Amino acid sequence: MLHLRSPRLLGLLGRYGSKSDFDNAIQELRAAFSDPHAVSTEAGTLLAHGFSMNDYHPGVPHTVVVFANSTEDVVQVVKIANKYKLPVVPFSGGTSLEGNFRAFPGGSICVSLAGMDNILEIHEADGDLVCQAGARWMDINAALKEKGIPLFFPLDPGPDATIGGMISTGCSGTNAVRYGTARAEWFLNVTVVLPSGEVIKTRRRARKSSAGFDLTKLFIGAEGTLGIVTEATLRLAPLLDTTVAICQFPTAARAVEAVREVLTSGAVLQCVELVDPDFIRASNLHGVSTRKYPEQDSIFFKFQGSDAIMKETSRQVRQIVQKYGATGWHLASNKQEASDLWDDRKNGLYTSLALIPGARGWSTDVCVPMSRLPEIIAETQLDIKEAGITSTIVGHVGQGNFHTLLLFRDDKELEVVRGLVHRMVERALALDGTCTGEHGVGLGKRKYLYEELGVGTVDLMKAIKKTIDPHNLFNPGKLYPDDISDQGKKL
Amino acid sequence: MLHLRSPRLLGLLGRYGSKSDFDNAIQELRAAFSDPHAVSTEAGTLLAHGFSMNDYHPGVPHTVVVFANSTEDVVQVVKIANKYKLPVVPFSGGTSLEGNFRAFPGGSICVSLAGMDNILEIHEADGDLVCQAGARWMDINAALKEKGIPLFFPLDPGPDATIGGMISTGCSGTNAVRYGTARAEWFLNVTVVLPSGEVIKTRRRARKSSAGFDLTKLFIGAEGTLGIVTEATLRLAPLLDTTVAICQFPTAARAVEAVREVLTSGAVLQCVELVDPDFIRASNLHGVSTRKYPEQDSIFFKFQGSDAIMKETSRQVRQIVQKYGATGWHLASNKQEASDLWDDRKNGLYTSLALIPGARGWSTDVCVPMSRLPEIIAETQLDIKEAGITSTIVGHVGQGNFHTLLLFRDDKELEVVRGLVHRMVERALALDGTCTGEHGVGLGKRKYLYEELGVGTVDLMKAIKKTIDPHNLFNPGKLYPDDISDQGKKL
Repeated sequence: MLHLRSPRLLGLLGRYGSKSDFDNAIQELRAAFSDPHAVSTEAGTLLAHGFSMNDYHPGVPHTVVVFANSTEDVVQVVKIANKYKLPVVPFSGGTSLEGNFRAFPGGSICVSLAGMDNILEIHEADGDLVCQAGARWMDINAALKEKGIPLFFPLDPGPDATIGGMISTGCSGTNAVRYGTARAEWFLNVTVVLPSGEVIKTRRRARKSSAGFDLTKLFIGAEGTLGIVTEATLRLAPLLDTTVAICQFPTAARAVEAVREVLTSGAVLQCVELVDPDFIRASNLHGVSTRKYPEQDSIFFKFQGSDAIMKETSRQVRQIVQKYGATGWHLASNKQEASDLWDDRKNGLYTSLALIPGARGWSTDVCVPMSRLPEIIAETQLDIKEAGITSTIVGHVGQGNFHTLLLFRDDKELEVVRGLVHRMVERALALDGTCTGEHGVGLGKRKYLYEELGVGTVDLMKAIKKTIDPHNLFNPGKLYPDDISDQGKKL
Repeated sequence: MLHLRSPRLLGLLGRYGSKSDFDNAIQELRAAFSDPHAVSTEAGTLLAHGFSMNDYHPGVPHTVVVFANSTEDVVQVVKIANKYKLPVVPFSGGTSLEGNFRAFPGGSICVSLAGMDNILEIHEADGDLVCQAGARWMDINAALKEKGIPLFFPLDPGPDATIGGMISTGCSGTNAVRYGTARAEWFLNVTVVLPSGEVIKTRRRARKSSAGFDLTKLFIGAEGTLGIVTEATLRLAPLLDTTVAICQFPTAARAVEAVREVLTSGAVLQCVELVDPDFIRASNLHGVSTRKYPEQDSIFFKFQGSDAIMKETSRQVRQIVQKYGATGWHLASNKQEASDLWDDRKNGLYTSLALIPGARGWSTDVCVPMSRLPEIIAETQLDIKEAGITSTIVGHVGQGNFHTLLLFRDDKELEVVRGLVHRMVERALALDGTCTGEHGVGLGKRKYLYEELGVGTVDLMKAIKKTIDPHNLFNPGKLYPDDISDQGKKL
């Protein structure tokens, strides 16, 4: 078991508990939880909860994993962690991409909220629901559909993402062009266990309130460093009919210009997704849609509303994109085709990985002011090509946000990919952009925070953290370079 | 000049500077600002900046008013305030309704940002602009229109509201049903002078970011208690054609039910505003529209988009509302009529006040889960009627938010009105609602914060406040009951 690895690290990390403190804590945890499976020190479990196949930052196993079933369970864990001054890392979906839930090198208690996946209340007439943090957004939408409730939760990050992770990452997804991100107003309130063990609820269930600081937002994007979200009230949106269209452009730059005019026209869009020729190549090879598309920079549009509105929107959008050299306009002729087309966009991770059998992929994202998207995509594409790496690119064009999935077969290529990711971030920062549009900071992006935000802004984050978590127990070492900043790049 | 009024109050207020500290500070301010009009101790100016005709909480004049022209000017003021430990209250539009910018009873420096009203950069291709905190939203939209830029800023509170005040109040307005509130994603970043005098910018200009805590949101709704916002980057929305329709309902409850179905249908709405029979009566008497309307509970709809989409939406909405007994459906036949109709809605404050010549009005708002709106409106209407008070009601139905404007002629009626406001809040809290949907807390609503949010949540606000403003210099005595809570109800 890895504990504080050197006296130097010990000093830098702060005064966390020792190996025997962990032993005592585990004993107390076992005593506190009647279910014998609630507290695990089984090697596979420790690794699975502290390590991720989704990122390429060094990782170690947790010291113990506790499976919580309720807010009170989380409180128990936090109180014991507090008693022995042990780091606590929350886990739920395990889908994040920047090492956000990685185990702490000096040893850590993982509290898993994966089992806390219940929908507690549905208020159809109010357009909201209350659920536990481990609930998956896809399961929530499936449950609403099954009950015949014509509402849905519109934040759509990766398929297995949970509400707690989505809140903590400040996620978004393809629907953001219409519905905004996790930082908009989809979370009406959150119930949070603070590092002290105290439980608070940030707000009531009204759709809006100007009663004081926006404490809900304080926990959105905080990656579990300020509190562990155990429940949330989600605002829901009307579930509308949708359809999908695709067309090709001579260049990504022309596609972005076209989207700008489409957005300005007020066309009723749900999504606008740019994909590059390699993405289309991957879809043509491995996608669900039987139709094959020209391997060019392309846009997937999703329209929403009544048939009449979708028809009018399609007419309007088609007219605009043609001015920018779009070709091959294809509107899905029925619901099944629309669904297949959209699946091809959403399954990009899998179809792209299949481009090189056995390859792994590094997925990263940045976001820039929209007008700078063409140049950063062009420069990144050139950089990737010169590096000899296979990749696919998707862009949430409506926000100036784009992702690369960079494939690699071995450690040598991994290092080439690491360099590409770094240069992509530096390019975004040079264009008044951000090192991460929707994946969060975790371990992977924290070294950029000072450059992106400035010392005063990061220091304000740290001051708030110190107030709420004076012993730095909650997910230490994530989000920004902290007291162990000089170790940050090695972690 | 009013300074610390009693030894008891002095102790409760904390160790603010004395009268001679104010004198020294004023001298230093005069030396720091070369413009002789920048620092004023003129009685009318002190009162005008510390007192408001918009609310009925006791008020006193400031000790000094400083007119800032830049972030650096604000820093100067804050540094001097810090040196002498003097309260600082920011002022810009002066339109807030809950005493949010009232002078501090023990003496305060008002820093006016009203002159900081410049648009600094317009990025049309990115859909954003950078402006100073004193810029008015209406002026910003007028400037964009004049330049032929087809974008607008969609938050629309009271006419003279400024960006700094809108941020600090966590405002919204009639457009919130389509665009959300100040707590959504319209402020991409803010530049803030902290109580230490340090200046930070919370984020860069990308449309979204998941890089760390959402510090922008920390200042939205903080009412100047954590920092003074001096500049902001605003996200803009496409400026679309709009039109307006109105119809009448048998009851407010039926109107709310109809709106619920309209929202669920995905109709392309920009606004949905409920008004009560008294509001219509006031409009019929004093409005700009020449058309007279039946004095019933009514809904104003604003549609947006291309002619084809508005026509289709109108058809769709009309069909729905008729199921709920709506009568008198009238869609504006041209732009002028639409504009006049909408002016009748937006001018409600003035037409309502005209119902009793010479009367004053107390405007207040609460917000509840949408399904509870009919009952709280009905109970409030009954309460108002039984109290013998003339009033008008408007509701931002899409959020469960409604306002009453309660008219009174003398101090006796003022006390009756005060009781009505209090009971309206208590009713909202009993229905899982909030004491304020969009007016903020200021002095008027702070006594409800503990009941609404719980001790732990308010204490977390206080802990953050103490970290950022350890001497409680920034707008003390607002937002929540603080160390002077036992004085709170008297202030």
